Amino acid sequence: MKAITVIGSTGSIGTQTLEIATQYPDEFRIVGLAAGRNIELLARQVAEFRPEIVATCYEDNLPELKTALENLDYSPIILAGEEGVAEVARYGDAESVVTGIVGCAGLLPTIAAIKAGKNIALANKETLIAGAPVVLPLVEKYGVKLLPADSEHSAIFQCLQGVPEKGLRRILLTASGGAFRDLPVEQLPEVTVADALKHPNWSMGQKITIDSATLMNKGLEVIEAHYLFGVDYDQIDIVIHPQSIIHSLIELQDTSVLAQLGWADMRLPLLYALSYPDRLYTDWEPLDLVKAGSLTFKEPDHEKYPCMQLAYAVGREGGLMPAVLNAANEQAVALFLEEKVGFLDIPRLIETVCDRASSYNTPNPTLEQILEVNQTARQEVLTAAKSLKTATA
Amino acid sequence: MKAITVIGSTGSIGTQTLEIATQYPDEFRIVGLAAGRNIELLARQVAEFRPEIVATCYEDNLPELKTALENLDYSPIILAGEEGVAEVARYGDAESVVTGIVGCAGLLPTIAAIKAGKNIALANKETLIAGAPVVLPLVEKYGVKLLPADSEHSAIFQCLQGVPEKGLRRILLTASGGAFRDLPVEQLPEVTVADALKHPNWSMGQKITIDSATLMNKGLEVIEAHYLFGVDYDQIDIVIHPQSIIHSLIELQDTSVLAQLGWADMRLPLLYALSYPDRLYTDWEPLDLVKAGSLTFKEPDHEKYPCMQLAYAVGREGGLMPAVLNAANEQAVALFLEEKVGFLDIPRLIETVCDRASSYNTPNPTLEQILEVNQTARQEVLTAAKSLKTATA
Repeated sequence: MKAITVIGSTGSIGTQTLEIATQYPDEFRIVGLAAGRNIELLARQVAEFRPEIVATCYEDNLPELKTALENLDYSPIILAGEEGVAEVARYGDAESVVTGIVGCAGLLPTIAAIKAGKNIALANKETLIAGAPVVLPLVEKYGVKLLPADSEHSAIFQCLQGVPEKGLRRILLTASGGAFRDLPVEQLPEVTVADALKHPNWSMGQKITIDSATLMNKGLEVIEAHYLFGVDYDQIDIVIHPQSIIHSLIELQDTSVLAQLGWADMRLPLLYALSYPDRLYTDWEPLDLVKAGSLTFKEPDHEKYPCMQLAYAVGREGGLMPAVLNAANEQAVALFLEEKVGFLDIPRLIETVCDRASSYNTPNPTLEQILEVNQTARQEVLTAAKSLKTATA
Repeated sequence: MKAITVIGSTGSIGTQTLEIATQYPDEFRIVGLAAGRNIELLARQVAEFRPEIVATCYEDNLPELKTALENLDYSPIILAGEEGVAEVARYGDAESVVTGIVGCAGLLPTIAAIKAGKNIALANKETLIAGAPVVLPLVEKYGVKLLPADSEHSAIFQCLQGVPEKGLRRILLTASGGAFRDLPVEQLPEVTVADALKHPNWSMGQKITIDSATLMNKGLEVIEAHYLFGVDYDQIDIVIHPQSIIHSLIELQDTSVLAQLGWADMRLPLLYALSYPDRLYTDWEPLDLVKAGSLTFKEPDHEKYPCMQLAYAVGREGGLMPAVLNAANEQAVALFLEEKVGFLDIPRLIETVCDRASSYNTPNPTLEQILEVNQTARQEVLTAAKSLKTATA
C-alpha cells in the first residue's frame, strides 16, 4: 500500500486523486491533505480518508476548519498557513506528494516534500517553470522522483521508461491547436473571450483554455519538458494534432518513434504518477482507434501563435526568465478574460515584460528572487497594458 | 563491441544485417556466416567481414565455397550441410545469432544457438510458429533472449521495454490491409496473381506479399506474438492501418496505449534487435508525421479475410497445429502463384488440411514431429487442391 499526501486536495487534481484513492482502497492510503478556502469539502475529505494531518493555506480559515473537524472519531493534526501546508507536505511516511495546488504557492510545500525525501506527483507547473533552478538541485540531492501528472509530460515519461541513457534524440509535444486552430490569422484580432473559451477536446479551466488558444500552454510545456527530461530546446518540437489522441511522442537515436495514446482523460496520467512504476487495472473505457477516427498532424503556425517562440526564447535564456514568462502570461490572460485587452495583446504584453526582465536575469536565482519576479512581472503587465491603451487611444 | 553470427547471410535479412555491421564497424564484429547456394556473395561477405567460421547449407556447394575462399589471407573454418550450419550457429563468442534463413530449416541452427547460450535476433518465423513447443522451453532453460527483427513484433517489444510484469493487457497488431484492402469482397474470387502482388506500402518477396493480401501474415504474427510475449489469443487484436506508420501498439492495464512508429523500413527493427538494449544513432530519415499524412484505422473484415480467424483457431489448438497452418499456407500460396488455384482457394485449402490435422494434434510435439507435419501438410494441400479441381470441374 502506497502512502500519499495531497496538497490542493479540493481542486481538480486533488479531487481526482482522491477519486482514484477511493477506487483503489488497497493501493493507496492518504497521509496528509491540504487545501485552500473550501473548508467544507476539505472536512468531508478528512472524514472519508482519515489523514494523519490536515491544513488550510489560510490562517483565517483555521477556526472554521477546526470546527468542521470537531466531531471526528479521531484527532488529526490540524494546521494552517504556508508553514502548515509545508508541514503536511513533509509529514510522515507518505511516499509521494501530489502537488495539485496552483501557482507559485506550490513551490514551498513541494520543496518541503522533496527535502523529506518524497516523490512528487507533479501537477503544479510552477515547480519547474518558475522553480527549476532551485528545485532540480534538490531533486538531485535528495534522490527523489518527479512524476509528471499532466498528459503530455506523462506521455513522454511513459515512453521513456524503456529507453536507455542517451537513447533519446527528440521530444515531440502534441498540441490540439486550441480554439482558433482553424481560424485564419487575420481574424485573430477580433476574437472574443467567449470564442477563446471553446476548447475542442479537453474540458478545462478558463485560464488553461486561453493558454491552449494562444498555444502558450505548449510553450510552457516545452520549458517544463526541458527541465523534466534534461533535453535541449533544439530537441523539443511541437506538432499540431487536433484529435488529442496521441498525447506526445519521443524520437530515439535510431529514428524509432514511441508514442503514448489514449482518450483525453486527465485521470490516466494522474493514476500513473500515483502507481508508478506499476500499472493498475482500470475499468475506464479503453482507447478504440477505429472510433477515434483519423489522426492528423500539422506544423504549428508561429506567426499565428507567437507565444510558442516566446517560450523557446525565454527558456533558452533560463534563470528567472521562465518565471517571468509564466507570471506575465497569467496576468495578461487575466486581463483578456476581464476584456481589458485583446487576444493578440497577450503575446505583446508578455514580450514587453520579458524584454525588460532580460536585463536583470540571473542564471542561478534564489527562491526569494523567483517569488519576487513572480509578483513584479504581473505588475509590469498591468503597467504595460495601460500604455497599450494610451497607444491605441 | 558485440559479436554476431548471421545464418542466412545472403538473403534479405542477412544482407541488411551486414549493411548495418558495415555502418557500425565499432559496434559489431561478425563471428560466423552461413548461407545457401549463393556462394559468390557468401565468399565476398567472408572477405569483407572475416568471420571465424563459414558454412553453406548444402554439402554439394562445399567444393565451390572452398575454392571461392582459397585466396583469403586467413583461414576460417569452412563447413557444409545441416550440421555445418548448426556449428556456425553455436560457434565462438557470438552474443547474438541472426536467423535470416527461411522455413523450418531455421529450426536446427536456432536450437543450436540457444543451447550455446546465444540470443536470437528472430527473423525466421518458423522458430516460433512451428517450433515454439520445442524452442520456448530451451529459451527458458538457457536464459537467452528472443529479439524480434520484424517490424510488428519489434514495435511491441520496444513498447514493452518499460512495462512492469503483468502491466500488459492487450496487443494490437497493425495490418496494412494488403493489395485488396479497398476491393469489395465480391470481386475477390476473380483476382489474379499480378493483382495480389501489388503491395501498397512494403516492398517484399512474392510469398509474403500474398500473405499480406490474404492477411495470413497477420494471422501468423498473432501466433508469433502469443508465443513471444506470452499473451492469450483473447489479448491479441488486429487493426487495419493502411499507412503502415504505426507498426503496432500495446494497451496496458490502466488503458494507457503505447505505440511504435516509423517509416516502413525493415532496417530499424533489425538494428534494434542487434543493438538491444542500446539505441544506436542513425542518419536514416526521421519520421515526419506531417509528411506521413492522416493515420487511419479500421476493423479487419473477417468475412473478406478468413485466414485471420483460421490462425486464431489454429493458434488456440496449439501443439502441432500452427506448424500445419504455416506449411499448408506456404503450399497453398505456391499453388496460387503458379496459377493452379484461385485466391479464395488459399484459405479453403488451409482449412481443409488443418481440419484433418486436428485429429493427430498433440500438445507437446517433438522437433521430429514438427518437421514431419511441415512436410505432410504440404502434401495434403496438393492432394486437396486436386479434389478442389475435381469438385469445380
